[in-house]
Amino acid sequence: MNEFFPKVKKIEFEGRDSTNPLAFKFYDESRVVAGKTMKEYLRFAVCYWHTFKSQGGDPFGAPTFERDWNQGTPMEVAEKTLAANFEFITKLGAPYYCFHDRDISPEGETFSESCSNLETIVGKAKGYQEDTGVQLLWGTANLFSHPRYMHGAASNPDPHVVACCAMQVRQAIAATQELGGQNYVFWGGREGYETLLNTDMKRERAQMAAFFHMCVDYAKKIGFTGQFLIEPKPKEPTKHQYDYDSSSVLSFLREFDLIDHFKLNIEANHATLAGHSFAHDLAVAAEAGKLGSIDANTGDPLLGWDTDQFPTDINDVTRAMLVIIEAGGLGSGGLNFDAKLRRGSIDTEDMFHAHIGGMDTFARGLLTAQALIEDGRINEFKANRYAGWDTGFGKSMLDGNETLESMEAKAMELGEPKRVSGKQEMLENILINAI
Amino acid sequence: MNEFFPKVKKIEFEGRDSTNPLAFKFYDESRVVAGKTMKEYLRFAVCYWHTFKSQGGDPFGAPTFERDWNQGTPMEVAEKTLAANFEFITKLGAPYYCFHDRDISPEGETFSESCSNLETIVGKAKGYQEDTGVQLLWGTANLFSHPRYMHGAASNPDPHVVACCAMQVRQAIAATQELGGQNYVFWGGREGYETLLNTDMKRERAQMAAFFHMCVDYAKKIGFTGQFLIEPKPKEPTKHQYDYDSSSVLSFLREFDLIDHFKLNIEANHATLAGHSFAHDLAVAAEAGKLGSIDANTGDPLLGWDTDQFPTDINDVTRAMLVIIEAGGLGSGGLNFDAKLRRGSIDTEDMFHAHIGGMDTFARGLLTAQALIEDGRINEFKANRYAGWDTGFGKSMLDGNETLESMEAKAMELGEPKRVSGKQEMLENILINAI
Amino acid sequence: MNEFFPKVKKIEFEGRDSTNPLAFKFYDESRVVAGKTMKEYLRFAVCYWHTFKSQGGDPFGAPTFERDWNQGTPMEVAEKTLAANFEFITKLGAPYYCFHDRDISPEGETFSESCSNLETIVGKAKGYQEDTGVQLLWGTANLFSHPRYMHGAASNPDPHVVACCAMQVRQAIAATQELGGQNYVFWGGREGYETLLNTDMKRERAQMAAFFHMCVDYAKKIGFTGQFLIEPKPKEPTKHQYDYDSSSVLSFLREFDLIDHFKLNIEANHATLAGHSFAHDLAVAAEAGKLGSIDANTGDPLLGWDTDQFPTDINDVTRAMLVIIEAGGLGSGGLNFDAKLRRGSIDTEDMFHAHIGGMDTFARGLLTAQALIEDGRINEFKANRYAGWDTGFGKSMLDGNETLESMEAKAMELGEPKRVSGKQEMLENILINAI
Amino acid sequence: MNEFFPKVKKIEFEGRDSTNPLAFKFYDESRVVAGKTMKEYLRFAVCYWHTFKSQGGDPFGAPTFERDWNQGTPMEVAEKTLAANFEFITKLGAPYYCFHDRDISPEGETFSESCSNLETIVGKAKGYQEDTGVQLLWGTANLFSHPRYMHGAASNPDPHVVACCAMQVRQAIAATQELGGQNYVFWGGREGYETLLNTDMKRERAQMAAFFHMCVDYAKKIGFTGQFLIEPKPKEPTKHQYDYDSSSVLSFLREFDLIDHFKLNIEANHATLAGHSFAHDLAVAAEAGKLGSIDANTGDPLLGWDTDQFPTDINDVTRAMLVIIEAGGLGSGGLNFDAKLRRGSIDTEDMFHAHIGGMDTFARGLLTAQALIEDGRINEFKANRYAGWDTGFGKSMLDGNETLESMEAKAMELGEPKRVSGKQEMLENILINAI
Repeated sequence: MNEFFPKVKKIEFEGRDSTNPLAFKFYDESRVVAGKTMKEYLRFAVCYWHTFKSQGGDPFGAPTFERDWNQGTPMEVAEKTLAANFEFITKLGAPYYCFHDRDISPEGETFSESCSNLETIVGKAKGYQEDTGVQLLWGTANLFSHPRYMHGAASNPDPHVVACCAMQVRQAIAATQELGGQNYVFWGGREGYETLLNTDMKRERAQMAAFFHMCVDYAKKIGFTGQFLIEPKPKEPTKHQYDYDSSSVLSFLREFDLIDHFKLNIEANHATLAGHSFAHDLAVAAEAGKLGSIDANTGDPLLGWDTDQFPTDINDVTRAMLVIIEAGGLGSGGLNFDAKLRRGSIDTEDMFHAHIGGMDTFARGLLTAQALIEDGRINEFKANRYAGWDTGFGKSMLDGNETLESMEAKAMELGEPKRVSGKQEMLENILINAI
Repeated sequence: MNEFFPKVKKIEFEGRDSTNPLAFKFYDESRVVAGKTMKEYLRFAVCYWHTFKSQGGDPFGAPTFERDWNQGTPMEVAEKTLAANFEFITKLGAPYYCFHDRDISPEGETFSESCSNLETIVGKAKGYQEDTGVQLLWGTANLFSHPRYMHGAASNPDPHVVACCAMQVRQAIAATQELGGQNYVFWGGREGYETLLNTDMKRERAQMAAFFHMCVDYAKKIGFTGQFLIEPKPKEPTKHQYDYDSSSVLSFLREFDLIDHFKLNIEANHATLAGHSFAHDLAVAAEAGKLGSIDANTGDPLLGWDTDQFPTDINDVTRAMLVIIEAGGLGSGGLNFDAKLRRGSIDTEDMFHAHIGGMDTFARGLLTAQALIEDGRINEFKANRYAGWDTGFGKSMLDGNETLESMEAKAMELGEPKRVSGKQEMLENILINAI
Repeated sequence: MNEFFPKVKKIEFEGRDSTNPLAFKFYDESRVVAGKTMKEYLRFAVCYWHTFKSQGGDPFGAPTFERDWNQGTPMEVAEKTLAANFEFITKLGAPYYCFHDRDISPEGETFSESCSNLETIVGKAKGYQEDTGVQLLWGTANLFSHPRYMHGAASNPDPHVVACCAMQVRQAIAATQELGGQNYVFWGGREGYETLLNTDMKRERAQMAAFFHMCVDYAKKIGFTGQFLIEPKPKEPTKHQYDYDSSSVLSFLREFDLIDHFKLNIEANHATLAGHSFAHDLAVAAEAGKLGSIDANTGDPLLGWDTDQFPTDINDVTRAMLVIIEAGGLGSGGLNFDAKLRRGSIDTEDMFHAHIGGMDTFARGLLTAQALIEDGRINEFKANRYAGWDTGFGKSMLDGNETLESMEAKAMELGEPKRVSGKQEMLENILINAI
Repeated sequence: MNEFFPKVKKIEFEGRDSTNPLAFKFYDESRVVAGKTMKEYLRFAVCYWHTFKSQGGDPFGAPTFERDWNQGTPMEVAEKTLAANFEFITKLGAPYYCFHDRDISPEGETFSESCSNLETIVGKAKGYQEDTGVQLLWGTANLFSHPRYMHGAASNPDPHVVACCAMQVRQAIAATQELGGQNYVFWGGREGYETLLNTDMKRERAQMAAFFHMCVDYAKKIGFTGQFLIEPKPKEPTKHQYDYDSSSVLSFLREFDLIDHFKLNIEANHATLAGHSFAHDLAVAAEAGKLGSIDANTGDPLLGWDTDQFPTDINDVTRAMLVIIEAGGLGSGGLNFDAKLRRGSIDTEDMFHAHIGGMDTFARGLLTAQALIEDGRINEFKANRYAGWDTGFGKSMLDGNETLESMEAKAMELGEPKRVSGKQEMLENILINAI
């Protein structure tokens, strides 16, 4: 296991002062925070597609990465890539990986060949998992790259295309089950529209709902116990995607009686493309009891597309970790680095730099968030701020025992309310001083 | 009734070729389109706040409008403004108006005085309505301007403030009922947060739900039969508002068992601030059977705040009218011009120019949309596109009678689907050529 | 010449009422507007890259277009594509085309082979031009797709890469000259940075200036008399591009003494990505006497990347045409459709729909703008508005003959200025009623 | 001097571990960094308008701040506010303040009265400056709030309005000189347009140039030696402002031969509204030798208007400080907190929290940037990256001694360039680990 990254040894925790760029400064897998090791808490996953399959191309330019695992027939490439994946993750020291069906195994000439390719690779992946201890955080099916999905996957106007989705998803769920995947993710990159002039949005959403019900039934039938997750994204590749943000997915799940079977996989860059902070969309999911897992990346707030950068913003990540800790952690979910190297970062070493930065940022965010919780001032401020709802007419209103008239009478009795400061600047200072 | 706009006579329909800027080119209240008069179809309303109460101030500059009705004691101003409102609407030829409690009558020194001011003005408004035939499309309470609402109205951390909301809303619903208002609108401009560091979003949303239930109960009690409407807006004035867009409001209504009692009031500029086209947010509401009414304005897509301009984009408005016609019209709702003059448009005549432009744009949009429906090509294209779902395994899947396995078998049997063009460019040409 | 589009005959002008989607409604090449034929005025060009070389791929999906000209060895493909280009343009009835070196001929194994490929294809293109009468509006070099340009072209940190740019640009200018190209365009898609942490912006801009001076010298040496054009774009593919917008390019040209040798090629979608309206960036260029040519497309204001759609917004295009007409037309420039079919528009017929829509939109914009000029009210309003600068102390100040003190004395003498309306709504009504 | 903030003593440096929210953690005025004290390096200024004159109003809500200095006649308020300003700054320990003419003294009934008010207050301010040692960083005139400027100040269509500008600016420059102001700032909040339909942009820009030349002449005449600064902002309040960003201002200064007389005052939030990072617009100014001063604030990247928040983003500020240090500091400029409390932060203590956070953030940014410079890895990477331009054909090209042909020959000789990684992720890790 030293074939593709021969110059890099296992990344170690070397403490903050080191100038070695191939060492963690904050992440130490065995360090205990709030009763768990960092490894247990943060549950990092390496994503297969960006990390091993993307080659540095962009809409205006050809691939720039030259990788040793990318030589040979499609199945040879698939096998080498698998080896590279497990070598990389083992050296990095992350516990998980995530994949799409078409990342780990190539599309064949026929549907049968695609299926057989997937089964072959899954068998080999299982062996690597056993050898290395690396586990599968989640699997998924790629329902957006093939031209047949250009007008949608489950929301396609043609039921024949939806049959192809069903085939791919059934096989991908089975593969995920075979590999002990703890979750299965649905990202609907083509579930949306380019123009309403040719789109029946209501029917397309109904198709999606019927499709998800078939998935729920299938999981039950085969005894797949992993968590189903939907990943919101507002736009890109399509002009509008139905799973716009946490709220719109929750609305859909409630409308179509699917709410008990799904949680959300929140991606930072998708939240910001929808106009929300990362912490916001996490909080929306968490408050509904539906925070399932996270795609840990970041966008560039000055650019309007999914830049999928590795997270480095300690302020944002601290705010995210405050939500995650309050939600009691991610359960079977984890932090998947759905992020890619910049196109000009062509060295295989850059893969380590990027992941080390991301893992250190989250480790630091965890430490900072925990320090803020221990400090207690922010939470105390919040508790005092809402104390009026714990008793009296506040509690009574929340319990459904007041009327507009009874509340009006209260207002008339009490007169103009006293104004109190929201103390945003003081609270922000507390947060940034904890970094 | 010729006191405040002495130079302007009733605006007439003079046909397209006229160069008179104080005449309609497309809007003719008695013109019949698809079986209704334009007046019945379009149900235009003048908004009281922008049209009569805003004075051209902006965050960087003082008021610029000097209006004759704005002289005297607060109650004198209120009475003159009411007269100006009915003179303007009568000359314009719009059938409706909309107001906030604090637009039509001034905040008093005490809660009782505010209430009494409102009752006085409502009485006078009732007289004007009877005299002129102008009706009230909807009323609402201003729960965002007063400093007591700086941390929220129904979502305020302090139940004492929520009691004040209850008082204002109860009185505003009663006033709306008294004036025969066909709807009552809730816009939550302060229902949101500035920072999650001091905010318990889950509790605040629960407060809002409890509040809305009290409103539903009150309407039932007093026999108010107008439609309750919630108006989404993503942000501004607050950093994040809970009623972000149609989807998030629908999600909220479903979560808290309020879905049967509310529809949506969609504002064009609010939709675009949330990243959606106007037609999109209308369609989301319409598909849920919840398209209640419209705030007819437009934003500047290159500016990031609510510019509240009068609609002039015939392309956008045609797409909106296609949704409205397909939804069977707006029922008890209408088209409220929640739009304001640019700060440099200081003449009272400019008020007419702006409304004429907005009404003509919608009239033209209605004519164009109707022409497209009669042309039939767009709808025929859509019908053919989804025809596969009307029979066979498509229909069977929508009916819940298929499984992933049965669909997979279908895919294996049928092989790779045929690809067909979505014809977006052709459909867009059909639309723009109809303008 | 009926090989690749056998089902389509020459597109004709059939008047507005026709429902034939393969006919112009407004564009009629021989129609005279303001003393010129539409063909002379609008000078449409088909772009080679999007129209013939892009295949419908996007960052999330594989190509979807299957084109007959795309079969064979690289040089066979190049020759067939050339044939398709001239067949398409001839049937469309546009007078011009535009290309990059690497669109019309393939990159070879060696620099010499690339050069030789280009020369071969240029020879054949010359033959087609003579046969069809189609002319070359402009040529350019692709300095952004090849991996060697990943860190910049002329602004690359490595002078060796800049030598490669020089090679490509010299050959592309020579090819453009050989084909009678009326302009040569520089678009710096990689001239910018991803992060300032590894970038010396000052040095990179100096490199670009030195490079442009070499280009000016070369053109002079070989007697190339076409106009040099720089095309601004703010971002994408890089995070920041030096040629951000019209102003930043003009600033650069002034700083480095290049202003006499360049004009601007303004792309609508690039302007909007920079936060400007299309008309604005045209006006900035025109006012500096530097409006050279136009990339006629449109973006989606709700999406944050270059969607390169065909223009359909008659309002925007009318405003653009007002600027162009006032500037006296585009001289040696033209209207290049730097626009692509949506990924799902896979039929070759869709290429015609898209171009017909674009040409009709500009034809209609020309007619509308001309009607507004003939109407005269907008221009009269503007003339009156600035009349104070034509005489008196206004003129004297513009002539440099006043001081702060003399102006202050004038203010003291005249007192508070009278306020006048800017009449934006009335002017907008005039514009939209002319459509 | 303990009238308005009786509960707050002088803010002290108490080291990082303190939990006292009214103490600095990083800023220590006498701490030496890179040969200067922090006070000398950072040159913080308190802005008069947001800090003392804004009252928490927003476009949707009334003022929320109740301040003791805001009681009495206009001149009494002005005098009390002045006292509050000097008490606040002295307690905070900042060395400077900045003002607009109409912040420190009220608009009178006549031009003469306004002038006399200003003179009175300037006399008193001079006394406070002498008593406290607080100095004036810069003065300016408010040419955007008064209705007379609704269509522009120096760019107004009416020369009479421009005469009023001249009056105000002359008096404001004189006041700045009287108070020993080290700079004078021009911010053109109304120098732009709402619509091109009523605007002659070319003429308006010429007016501005003529106006600036009068200002340069006046400064020379009276011997004012402070630096003239222009502050770019792309939009808001107007739809488009001529001083869009650093590049557009530099272009203007070059076009109208004003480049020797002006530098730039860069505001962070204005840069981001123009689509640039704060560090970018600083770097553009610095590379032109025109970095004059800074308005130190931050925007919310998810909101589209000028939120004017106090800076708290250590990552952004570190990048800014790297530019500032490399530029050799700010000279006569400084860091003016053009930032305001959130509307709900109504306590006078919140004014201290906000400024402490801002000062600490910049102090920490200075320390981090200095640490990175001492670490040396980032600068070493950059030096190596561009080393090819220091010798050989790279240097020769920059010196103007190469041609496209000589460069092409070099490319042919050297073949395909070697590709090297840009190492963005590694460099970002170095930066964030230094925080």
